[in-house]
Formats: sequence, C-alpha cells, structure tokens
Amino acid sequence: MSSLLVTGAAELVTWDPERPVLVDAALVVEDGRVAWTGAATEAPAADEVLDVDGAAVLPGFVDAHSHLVFAGDRAGEFEARASGRRYTAGGIRTTVAATRAASDADLAATVDRLLAEMRRQGTTTVEIKSGYGLTVDDEERALRIARGRTEETTFLGAHVVPDGTDPAAYVDLVTGPMLGACAPYARWIDAFCEDGAFDADAARAVLVAGRDAGLGMRLHANQLGPGPGVRLACELGAAAVDHCTYLSDADVDALAGSDTVAGLLPGVEFSTHHPYPHARRLIDAGVRVALATDCNPGSSYTSSMPLCIALAVREMGMTPLEALHAATCGGAGSLRRDDVGHLRVGARADLCVLDAPSYVHLAYRPGVPLVARTLVAGA
Amino acid sequence: MSSLLVTGAAELVTWDPERPVLVDAALVVEDGRVAWTGAATEAPAADEVLDVDGAAVLPGFVDAHSHLVFAGDRAGEFEARASGRRYTAGGIRTTVAATRAASDADLAATVDRLLAEMRRQGTTTVEIKSGYGLTVDDEERALRIARGRTEETTFLGAHVVPDGTDPAAYVDLVTGPMLGACAPYARWIDAFCEDGAFDADAARAVLVAGRDAGLGMRLHANQLGPGPGVRLACELGAAAVDHCTYLSDADVDALAGSDTVAGLLPGVEFSTHHPYPHARRLIDAGVRVALATDCNPGSSYTSSMPLCIALAVREMGMTPLEALHAATCGGAGSLRRDDVGHLRVGARADLCVLDAPSYVHLAYRPGVPLVARTLVAGA
Ligand SMILES: [Zn+2]
Ligand SMILES: [Zn+2]
Repeated sequence: MSSLLVTGAAELVTWDPERPVLVDAALVVEDGRVAWTGAATEAPAADEVLDVDGAAVLPGFVDAHSHLVFAGDRAGEFEARASGRRYTAGGIRTTVAATRAASDADLAATVDRLLAEMRRQGTTTVEIKSGYGLTVDDEERALRIARGRTEETTFLGAHVVPDGTDPAAYVDLVTGPMLGACAPYARWIDAFCEDGAFDADAARAVLVAGRDAGLGMRLHANQLGPGPGVRLACELGAAAVDHCTYLSDADVDALAGSDTVAGLLPGVEFSTHHPYPHARRLIDAGVRVALATDCNPGSSYTSSMPLCIALAVREMGMTPLEALHAATCGGAGSLRRDDVGHLRVGARADLCVLDAPSYVHLAYRPGVPLVARTLVAGA
Repeated sequence: MSSLLVTGAAELVTWDPERPVLVDAALVVEDGRVAWTGAATEAPAADEVLDVDGAAVLPGFVDAHSHLVFAGDRAGEFEARASGRRYTAGGIRTTVAATRAASDADLAATVDRLLAEMRRQGTTTVEIKSGYGLTVDDEERALRIARGRTEETTFLGAHVVPDGTDPAAYVDLVTGPMLGACAPYARWIDAFCEDGAFDADAARAVLVAGRDAGLGMRLHANQLGPGPGVRLACELGAAAVDHCTYLSDADVDALAGSDTVAGLLPGVEFSTHHPYPHARRLIDAGVRVALATDCNPGSSYTSSMPLCIALAVREMGMTPLEALHAATCGGAGSLRRDDVGHLRVGARADLCVLDAPSYVHLAYRPGVPLVARTLVAGA
C-alpha cells in the first residue's frame, strides 16, 4: 500500500503528551495509519504528497452521541415554537411514528446523508443510537442499518416508554426479547434516565442487562433537571454519561472519582434554552469531558462539531484547546477507543484539514464551514 | 442570452407581498433577471434546467455590513481572552498596523478569500468598509480594492482616531483630504459613534461631509452602551444605523418614525458577550431591521449569514421567517437596493439553493453548511 505525506501544516495537532501541537509540521500515513509526525523540514519521502499550504491539520472529530436513524424532520414544530405559537403535537413520539412507517431504504438514505454531512464538517467517527423504533423489529432494524455504517452502534430501546405501554412491562421487553434481537448489532447499551422517561431503577436494570449481554454501558442523564443518573453511571462504571446539564457537587465528585466520561452536548442547550453545562467546573475537578452533537430531529438537529466547539468556548468556559480535545480525544475516551481522536504514531489516519491556519479559528470564526478536507484512514 | 429554469423547489421564497413563500415552485431566469415565478407544474420551457429536487430556493443573502480589507488575523488575542489570560496588545490598532504594512496583493487576496467563503454560504451582495488604513493613502487603497469587487463600498475613515492624532484634527482630515481621495471609490460614508471613538458632533460632521460629497449615509452606533448615535442617524435620514445593541425608548421611536434601517449584527454579541439586540422590540415597533455579519478580525470574524439567522431566532426573538427577511430584503433596504434581496420578477437572479427542504432549517440546524449552491445573476 502506498504512503502519503501530508505536509505544509502551520499547525498539526497530534495530542502527543510531550508536544500536543506541532507547528510547520508534517505527517506520514502508511496502510491507513499514522507512521510518522514531525517538522515538515525533516519529513521522509512518500509515494504521494498532500501540501496543505499553511492550513491546520487536526484529528478528525469523534462524535460520540447521535441519533441518526429516523424519518421525518420536525421543522414545523421548531418553527411554531420559535414563532411563539403553541404546538401540542410533536416530540419524540412524532419521530417514532414516522420512523416506524419509513422503508429501510429511506432510513438508510437519511443516515447516509447525515454521515456525509458530518464528514464534510470533519467528523470521522460517529456513534449512532437506535431509539425511534421502540418495538423489537423496529429497534433491530435501526441497529442493523446503523451497523452497516459505523462500529459504534448503541441500543437505546429505553429512550421513551411508547404510548399505551406499561412502563414495567416495557423495561421487561427492552431487557428481554428486544435486547436479544438488538445485541448482535450493537456495541453499546444506553437509556434515558430522566423524570418522564426511565427512573434510576429502570435505567440500572437496562444497563446491567446490556452489560450481561456483552455490551458497553452509556447513559443519558441530568439533561432536564437534577437526578440520580450521573451517579448511577459512575457506580456502574459506564463509559460515558451524556448531557450533564444539571449537576450537584456529589455528581461532580462521582465523575471525578470514576473513569466515566461526561459527554456535553451544547447543540441541545442551543435548541432547548436550558443552561449550558458547566464544563469549566468539570474540567477543574478533573473530570474527562467529551463534546458531541446529539444530532437528532428534535432537541439538536445540528451535525456540526465545529459549532459545538464554538459554543463550548463561548458558553461553557472551555478554552479553544480544551474544546478541540473534548471533540477528538474526549469523544474517543467516551467510546473507549485509543486508535482515533489523536494523530500519534499508530493512530488511524483520520484527520481534517482546515481552511484556516489554526484550530483556534473553529471558535474564533463561528458558523463558517472551515473544514476543507477530511481523510478517513488516510483516504 | 439563454434562459434557465430552476425547478423542483419545495419552497421558493420570493417575498412577493401576496405570496412570499411558494411551495412546489419554479423560477425562470432570463438575462440574469427573474423573468417568471410560479408553480413548478406551470413553468414555461427554458434553454437550461436546474432541478433542485425538493430543496428550498431563497434570495441570496445581502450582507450589508463587513470590514473585509485588512491584514493579519487576531486568533492569538481571541485565544488569550477565551482562555482567561490578559492580553494588553490587540484591538483595532493591531489590525491597522498590519493592514498598512500589507501589500495591495495580500489585501486583495484576503478580500477575495472572504468573498468566496461568503458566496459558498449563500451571500450574493456584500457591503465592504474601509477603516483599517486611517491615512489618506491607506483608506483610498482599501476602497480601491473593495470597489473592484463590490458596488457597495463604504468610506469609514472615522473608525477610530489613530494613535498620536488630535481628534479634531483627524475629523478635519477625514472630512477634507481623505474624503476627497476616497469618495470616487465609495458609495457610502460611515462613522463609529461611540464613547472612545467619535462623539455625536464628530459623527455628524463626517456624515454631512460625506453626504455633501454625494455619498449615502450609514452609522455604527449604540454598540457598547447607550448613546446619541441612533437618533443622529434617524435625524440625518441615514440609510442604516448598525449595532443597535443598547436602545432607549426614544431610540426605538426615532427608528420607527424614520426610513433608517436598524442593522443587527449578532456575530458581534456572540463574540463580545454584550447582550444581543432586542429585535422583537424593534419589529413590534415597526422598525425595519437587517441582519449582517460585521465580518472583521476583531469583534466578529464570522462570514456566515446562516449563523446570524440562527442567532437571531435563538437569541433575539425573531421568527425564522423574520430572520430570513432581515438577511435578504432587510439588507437590501439597508443598502437602498430594490434589485436584490427578493426574487420577484425583475430582480437580479441572485439566489441560493439549500441542502434542505425549507428556510426553517437555517435556524433549526445551526452550524450546518446548508447552502448547496449560490447563483449570482443566474450564473
Ligand atoms: Zn441523545
Ligand atoms: Zn462594523
């Protein structure tokens, strides 16, 4: 397989502990992996050369939280709310009905469209959840479609209790036949632990059942108000607990004392007007944080990791470097991956080339499509 | 000249007073102008056909406030502030020094790069100001470069009083020799009326001198605090007064009773953390509003009209339709143009095709590069 030299980088972010950001740097890709990084003037020869001419080169973004398998957008609901009109229909149940009614081909086309959109914005690893099917067949279908497109698939049967279903009976379904049908297509189990969705006992039952079926654990928690979810995730040793909008001191302590990554999803707060999560407080306490889009047609229909970075800097007290770290290395940690999210030797050569000389521009130039080129495994 | 049929539009925003938004619509371009709009099923034949396949088609954005003629970015200053570090250098004067030191070719390349970036984001008319030269030769040079690229050029010698210059003497320079040198390349005169920049008497002197030299009037005012600028602009009959962040009831009344358009620049508040202007209050009072980027390397280095729309909806109380109107028709009004900002028959065929079925997605999907294609005069 041929080698590729990426050179002319004004900045190259590798996240090497010694020198996380190189200047006037280059990188060599061999067999889809990073084989060398260093000063452009010292770069070895390679079969092909990509001169980025003063641009910044970053690890591809790792978006560790998305809900891409759905049908129908909710633009009408969004517009009504944004125009001050009441809107009583809508919500997750609207998307569930549309998703169940859609063909496999339509669902797959939506996932492909959004993945392409993400890749144009520099994202190279995407986690995709089920959760708009809520029947054995519909959840299995969602995960089958997702699994054809990413390794990072998450079974979220416990997204919401479907209309007309007894909550306890639904948890039995999720932890029984639905888990059995879905586990072959899933790497992760997830639940929405929140008032109005699943309480701590139900969420615990779902996560433990998933773990016993060989899945890794992640959790939605503390999005709409304080609650027990964050501490539950830490106690169970979940890889990630996402949202973390409303945190008590005990929650922060639990996170700091665990290996659980706190996933922050500022596109949600942009859309819902809840307060942004207090990333500064988490980082200062030693908590590992990830940024992700939560891309979904209801509470956060952005696919833009650059916007998440800009919001993290503007609204959440993160520095531009911390926000970039959370969007790359942080996402990788949330997925317990060490082959992505950085560009040290041995990493998968997933990278993005900016139309800008520095990663700082992602926050300094909000909304501007600054990703000029995205490579996955060097291609 | 050949005709072009743009068809398959799920939505076509024309701003025709009778039917501002058509569905399942088409548009015919002849000689760079809109020759016909209506139902796709009733469209006449044309030499060429562009089928947008269910996308929304909008008037191109009119960005009526930008400062594109500069050298050097201020990413270091941005990062220091965003990281909580003191940064005593920086500010407009840094950009003035870099701009004066740059070659014509470098300045032109920056303008071209930013204009291309804007066009990729759907902007088809751009106003460009001088204001980083602050000498007769440097201001003239900035306007000469801008004039080669847009009709909408603005002489902003009164941006800031240069270091070591007496303010009264500088106003004499701006209204005398500098105006004389710049007026041939400018359509507009502008001043920064704010504590620390130019007071009302100075701003009045500058605007009146410009008007007497045949230029239209616009003003920067009420950005950093309350002040007399908005009322001055209304009294003088300026086409636009931009920022309007801090407004008294008397300011709103003056705007409502005038033909002056209030230009709102939410990228500035995103960057500076001042409160966002209260668009709802202005619209409810009958004030005409425009949205613009204020693209500049200090207080708002975004070139994204879609981001401005998303912020206007999220932060400023505008509906998605009002925000789109302000970003198209509103900008045209601010520039006293009736040939752009809409797609009624006779308009210049400046339009953008979204990668989305509705204009609502510009606010519903923040940060996502949704502009698939931009046409200027049908090309
Ligand atoms: Zn989610
Ligand atoms: Zn300005």
